[in-house]
Amino acid sequence: ASSGRATSTFGLFGVLASHGIPVQTFAGGSSERNISIATSRANEVRALNAIHGALLFPTRRTIDVYLAGAGRVGAAFLEQLRQQAETLARDENTHVRLAGVATSKRMLIDPRGIDQAAWRARMEADGQPCDLERFIDALVEPRRPTSVFVDCTASDQPASWFLRLIAAGVPVIAANKRPFAGPLDAYRKLKDAVARGAAVHYETTVGAGLPVLGTLSDLVRTGDRVNSIDGVLSGTLGFVLDRLRGGTPFSAAVKDAHARGYSEPDPRDDLMGADVARKILILGREAGYPLEPDAVTTIPLVPAEWSALSLDDFWRELPSLDGMFAAKQTDAAGSGRRLCYLARVSDGRATVGLEAVDQSHPCATLSGTDNLIAFSTDRYDTTPLVVRGPGAGPYVTAAGVFADVLRAARTADRP
Amino acid sequence: ASSGRATSTFGLFGVLASHGIPVQTFAGGSSERNISIATSRANEVRALNAIHGALLFPTRRTIDVYLAGAGRVGAAFLEQLRQQAETLARDENTHVRLAGVATSKRMLIDPRGIDQAAWRARMEADGQPCDLERFIDALVEPRRPTSVFVDCTASDQPASWFLRLIAAGVPVIAANKRPFAGPLDAYRKLKDAVARGAAVHYETTVGAGLPVLGTLSDLVRTGDRVNSIDGVLSGTLGFVLDRLRGGTPFSAAVKDAHARGYSEPDPRDDLMGADVARKILILGREAGYPLEPDAVTTIPLVPAEWSALSLDDFWRELPSLDGMFAAKQTDAAGSGRRLCYLARVSDGRATVGLEAVDQSHPCATLSGTDNLIAFSTDRYDTTPLVVRGPGAGPYVTAAGVFADVLRAARTADRP
Repeated sequence: ASSGRATSTFGLFGVLASHGIPVQTFAGGSSERNISIATSRANEVRALNAIHGALLFPTRRTIDVYLAGAGRVGAAFLEQLRQQAETLARDENTHVRLAGVATSKRMLIDPRGIDQAAWRARMEADGQPCDLERFIDALVEPRRPTSVFVDCTASDQPASWFLRLIAAGVPVIAANKRPFAGPLDAYRKLKDAVARGAAVHYETTVGAGLPVLGTLSDLVRTGDRVNSIDGVLSGTLGFVLDRLRGGTPFSAAVKDAHARGYSEPDPRDDLMGADVARKILILGREAGYPLEPDAVTTIPLVPAEWSALSLDDFWRELPSLDGMFAAKQTDAAGSGRRLCYLARVSDGRATVGLEAVDQSHPCATLSGTDNLIAFSTDRYDTTPLVVRGPGAGPYVTAAGVFADVLRAARTADRP
Repeated sequence: ASSGRATSTFGLFGVLASHGIPVQTFAGGSSERNISIATSRANEVRALNAIHGALLFPTRRTIDVYLAGAGRVGAAFLEQLRQQAETLARDENTHVRLAGVATSKRMLIDPRGIDQAAWRARMEADGQPCDLERFIDALVEPRRPTSVFVDCTASDQPASWFLRLIAAGVPVIAANKRPFAGPLDAYRKLKDAVARGAAVHYETTVGAGLPVLGTLSDLVRTGDRVNSIDGVLSGTLGFVLDRLRGGTPFSAAVKDAHARGYSEPDPRDDLMGADVARKILILGREAGYPLEPDAVTTIPLVPAEWSALSLDDFWRELPSLDGMFAAKQTDAAGSGRRLCYLARVSDGRATVGLEAVDQSHPCATLSGTDNLIAFSTDRYDTTPLVVRGPGAGPYVTAAGVFADVLRAARTADRP
């Protein structure tokens, strides 16, 4: 075999070695523009393919995306994928196709690729009633090794699917935090798989597109000890407390957040703190603490008994808290403090609740719907490592999912 | 071939498929504890190895580290490696060995591994005079595909070495920012290699261990448009301006930073802004702007002509600036602003210089030696994505290098 463009002899040997192809002898021309390599007849084709693949053409990556959950985040992800597909093909020779999509009602699978601009119409026309078990079946068939599974649902089910996908070597990307915030045993099974080399990416489960879990993982894997994590992890509650600071009564601030679409349709889903508790649980676990969900001490912003009220009754009761919150706000302002709905892991204990933090606290300057996560560690000891910014919203969350897909593609990239 | 522990049939097929081994027929026992698979005689050993490797034992990764530059950062990295080796072996089956180390004077290469607790003594005893060309030679030999090269030097040389290493498939990790802050053409060659799948990691060249370049890369690769990047990228100058705000004369603040070891031995290396200019150049390039080094408009904190002074003369002249800086500080405070030595990329133009920012600027609350980087993008438009914290120091920088090594190991991981 002879290569006419052996600009790097060392590259050539490296490529052959990485494919396990022994070189028996070689000779270089004095022009430094050619080199001859002898290998066995049996390896001839493989050697040529390896050389051409590595030296003459960049690695071509194809990723078949199977998306479960096409709500606001899932739909934004498909939109970003469509807009960026050409750039990724041109700049990185990475070809991302949509091969399957499932909503709560219907699903569509087509390994030849689904037009991302028209997936909804095609799903109506060619799709089937949704059956996620069968959706997963399509992924774990061995003939599609470049597929990735993206979970943009809010389902409680996926933990077991994830293990099936992982066992089949399919990378899993999740915006759904539930599989990581359930029983410790289920979380550990996923982490064990990651330790054995499985690609499971869930950066967006805390802080949406902000670089939170990757940062924490780097700290832990390099041997830093995480002493505490402080976080403002609910943009909705940040907004409410911001309005409270501006003089708006608590109930009116909650109504405003609801009217703007910042809160969940039922605002109690935010006010009870359950979503924040799930996030700090994930952060605590990633920091190395074996926490069960009930180990997170959560003080809701409204009485826990209000869960039992009808939504109408809840709205009627809400103004009864205005006086208490106004007093809390006045107290905090009087001592130069700021009210934050703070999540914290410290000494392995996780807590969620309203706190009045002083000016030196990293959350003291936070405003609006921004999230903030501060890591205090053995190495980041005098001041913490802080990540801050919009921590919710379909576009930033979708971008985080997209980045996870590209990460999975790179690590899953095999010759 | 029969496997006695086929807990996942799908896993089995996936593993064989990923090794390109066709399955001719198969049969599962009713106990669901065994499965028989028929493949060709030629594939028998490979199939068994693939199955045992993937299902019975986790992937074993071995990384041979070749470190150039064993100053404060390099030495801290080796120390962290030594402390964390056992944990990585136990938790991730990742075995990190030191196989080569080079200082400006001597080098030691031993692919069997170098005791990390005693490398200095062994280098004195068994080492050779340093010759980095020969150090690289040892790495690009094809028999060591799991090697990584770590550049903790401040050398101008490495860009060409990097290309040689990349061509040989050796991952490159750099804390040295010069290869990325030189002529645009050299930078582009490195980026082209990355686009073709080469592992080149240099997170620590901006903000040390803070998650800056990885975050920016995720934004760009997923199609976000970076509209501006604002950064405080010099802890030394942040400290000086902090003291100035506290009433210390400028010259005394610079002397204090020098006495504490925060500044370079010659403080002009900080005050001239060249190091900050390199960092914003890298950020601008990573954001997609084709910037040559001289495209960064840099206003130094002290007259540029002072570069020609002796160090003694420089220290003598320094107090002549005290009045001007006191006036700037008084002006800024009077209008509720904060003096920052700010680096900025906006509309493709890069600038570095002293600015008085108002309270709404993300840098307005920064204090001490912390760095801060704020990304304003199409998706992060109402408020920026902000990363903040200690952006210098041997331990956090070394941890960033270590994280890059582990990242390279994961992406370079091939069967």
